[in-house]
Amino acid sequence: MKIITISREFGSGGRELGKRLADTLGFDYYDREIITAIAQAQGMDENYVEKALEGGMWQHIPLTYGQAFSGGAMMQAAQTGLLVEQRRVIEGIAKAGRDCVIVGRDADILLADQKPFTMFVCADMDAKVRRCMERAREGENLSRKAMMQNIARIDKARARSREMISDSKWGHGASYHMTVNTSGWEIKELTGAVADFVTRWFARTK
Amino acid sequence: MKIITISREFGSGGRELGKRLADTLGFDYYDREIITAIAQAQGMDENYVEKALEGGMWQHIPLTYGQAFSGGAMMQAAQTGLLVEQRRVIEGIAKAGRDCVIVGRDADILLADQKPFTMFVCADMDAKVRRCMERAREGENLSRKAMMQNIARIDKARARSREMISDSKWGHGASYHMTVNTSGWEIKELTGAVADFVTRWFARTK
Repeated sequence: MKIITISREFGSGGRELGKRLADTLGFDYYDREIITAIAQAQGMDENYVEKALEGGMWQHIPLTYGQAFSGGAMMQAAQTGLLVEQRRVIEGIAKAGRDCVIVGRDADILLADQKPFTMFVCADMDAKVRRCMERAREGENLSRKAMMQNIARIDKARARSREMISDSKWGHGASYHMTVNTSGWEIKELTGAVADFVTRWFARTK
Repeated sequence: MKIITISREFGSGGRELGKRLADTLGFDYYDREIITAIAQAQGMDENYVEKALEGGMWQHIPLTYGQAFSGGAMMQAAQTGLLVEQRRVIEGIAKAGRDCVIVGRDADILLADQKPFTMFVCADMDAKVRRCMERAREGENLSRKAMMQNIARIDKARARSREMISDSKWGHGASYHMTVNTSGWEIKELTGAVADFVTRWFARTK
């Protein structure tokens, strides 16, 4: 069984790269499917699960309430429950034994025993903002500054989530087998280059 | 003209990868040659030039002497002169117009106008220590701890040198087109995978 995990900066195109990579190699693809499985198992709304796992709901707790604010503890318990369920779902994917690409969710850490090929996908800030602008829903008119704050907030939550369960740093080269910067590439062409690289990794002799 | 620059963690095998990559692609290769050229131009000893550019000579100035210690200012002036000469040599390589691989020396920053393919090469700490042990000269018997301190010191100097002339961070994924972790690879096999990736980069349509 070959597993490729993709961690990525928000707006870098890591998800598109992962999807195309799975198509190119004929692998299964998991991303949003994990959220759906967790939501179903817990009888919760998908959007709530997504926000909670992104750490997005923390921003709604006023900091001035301090640590005594009981809502904080409740949310922390809910989030912990979701993280346990997420681990169960991801381990289930690995148990199925099929070649796959898994985007996000700290799958590289959770599945370390399965020896996945681990990737980090990043991009220049200008390219990330441009990608987010293109993807923005109609009527959503964030300024460039707000967009950059949004990117920083989500990436910070991703780093925190990884560093809760691992000593290795989110986004540092040595934490992954390969890191690619998507800036300057058509994702389609980059996919071919990455697919070849990964194929050589799985065929290596060491 | 195609230029590939390789920045690397000490002990990661980046130099071997660079040399093999140049051989595979039929490119010129520059590493130690740059030190030799600077030393000749300045009428200085090669080892002195190397140490000075690595920032290694700073460690011999006792911190307690403080900023008033005139030796510090003299060494800083000497180092600045060497950095200017290094820039001249590297720009000269680019002016020659031949495809090449340049290892280290912040060539990615100095030659940014030439749009090089920029790589960062890293490895797990265990692998770096092992590599350094294998390469140690006879009679050189550093402990594992001393070896790790040595690696950290050299990499810190490399980071500082880059960050003197660039806003982009040394070793961060987004600062390079591609980052590879050599751990788990035979460098020879990794070279083939990187050569294909780079070839696709230079042939891309965007």
